[in-house]
Amino acid sequence: MIEVEVKAKINSFDEMEEKLSKIGALKTKKEFQEDIYFNSPVVDFAKTDEALRIRTTTEDEKTNIFITYKGPKIDQKSKTRHEIEMGIEDAKKCAGIFEAIGFRNVRTVRKNRQYFTYEKFEISLDDVEGLDPYMEIEIGLNDGEDYNEAQNSIFELFEKLGITDGFERTSYLELLENLNNN
Amino acid sequence: MIEVEVKAKINSFDEMEEKLSKIGALKTKKEFQEDIYFNSPVVDFAKTDEALRIRTTTEDEKTNIFITYKGPKIDQKSKTRHEIEMGIEDAKKCAGIFEAIGFRNVRTVRKNRQYFTYEKFEISLDDVEGLDPYMEIEIGLNDGEDYNEAQNSIFELFEKLGITDGFERTSYLELLENLNNN
Repeated sequence: MIEVEVKAKINSFDEMEEKLSKIGALKTKKEFQEDIYFNSPVVDFAKTDEALRIRTTTEDEKTNIFITYKGPKIDQKSKTRHEIEMGIEDAKKCAGIFEAIGFRNVRTVRKNRQYFTYEKFEISLDDVEGLDPYMEIEIGLNDGEDYNEAQNSIFELFEKLGITDGFERTSYLELLENLNNN
Repeated sequence: MIEVEVKAKINSFDEMEEKLSKIGALKTKKEFQEDIYFNSPVVDFAKTDEALRIRTTTEDEKTNIFITYKGPKIDQKSKTRHEIEMGIEDAKKCAGIFEAIGFRNVRTVRKNRQYFTYEKFEISLDDVEGLDPYMEIEIGLNDGEDYNEAQNSIFELFEKLGITDGFERTSYLELLENLNNN
């Protein structure tokens, strides 16, 4: 799958929720997400712009666990990437397997994410532990589909919501790593 | 988990089924197992005596999929190893993730496995594509439990079933690789 995704800093969640409601976006699930990121023994994923993580999501009492691999960003403006995501049974066992085959646990990123849907878009308001408020807008494409149009429509939606700057291509993981290194 | 496991070549499945029935072993599920083995970009698993595989099991209409990591054998007589096994959603997505993070698909091993249980033992009659008939006897232990006693009891059970030689510490994967290289 190709994940076409743009992220921007926002002023406040309440203000943005109001704007989203006004344009008719539908508030859907709210999840707590815990992402354990791993680095490769062969290459430095921070340099190759890849990511391997175990995500545990909790919504009310329901827990889901996934492995996600994200390939390098494939354009200069957005966070468009090739992504493979797969459900798994157990985060601890999975971390054990990743470590056994040489991968190293680098950091855990925790956030509360409120999802909205609007037309073909998935919108997330992300309250990441240790970071400012962010909003992400995403469209999922099948491999081979053109992502330029999708990307343009995402920037148009940002504009409709009053956001024309503050775009950020750096991942939450790297933003947190940068904070810690400064 | 520690998997204490001993494998031996047998003459015939029918003859062994009869012996197992005589001692009171219970015939349980029969599965078709397809194992896709991967090698590491860092070390050669054939040399480090590790294994990483995706196993798809089919029993009647029911399919289950797992990732299994097996550590190196930890004794000289049996195939006792540290093992981590975890259920996953999709074999193809998983192969895609393994390949994306640098692992290489080396071989697929297919077999029909008939399971039996007897006391604390799990017994398998393994009809592996391309190999002679084999039987495996296994006991699962928790990490830290002593495996010597378990191992001795496995060899006693083999003797009870008339098998005192033909033991094989080489995995089905390696047996098939060796056949192909000769």
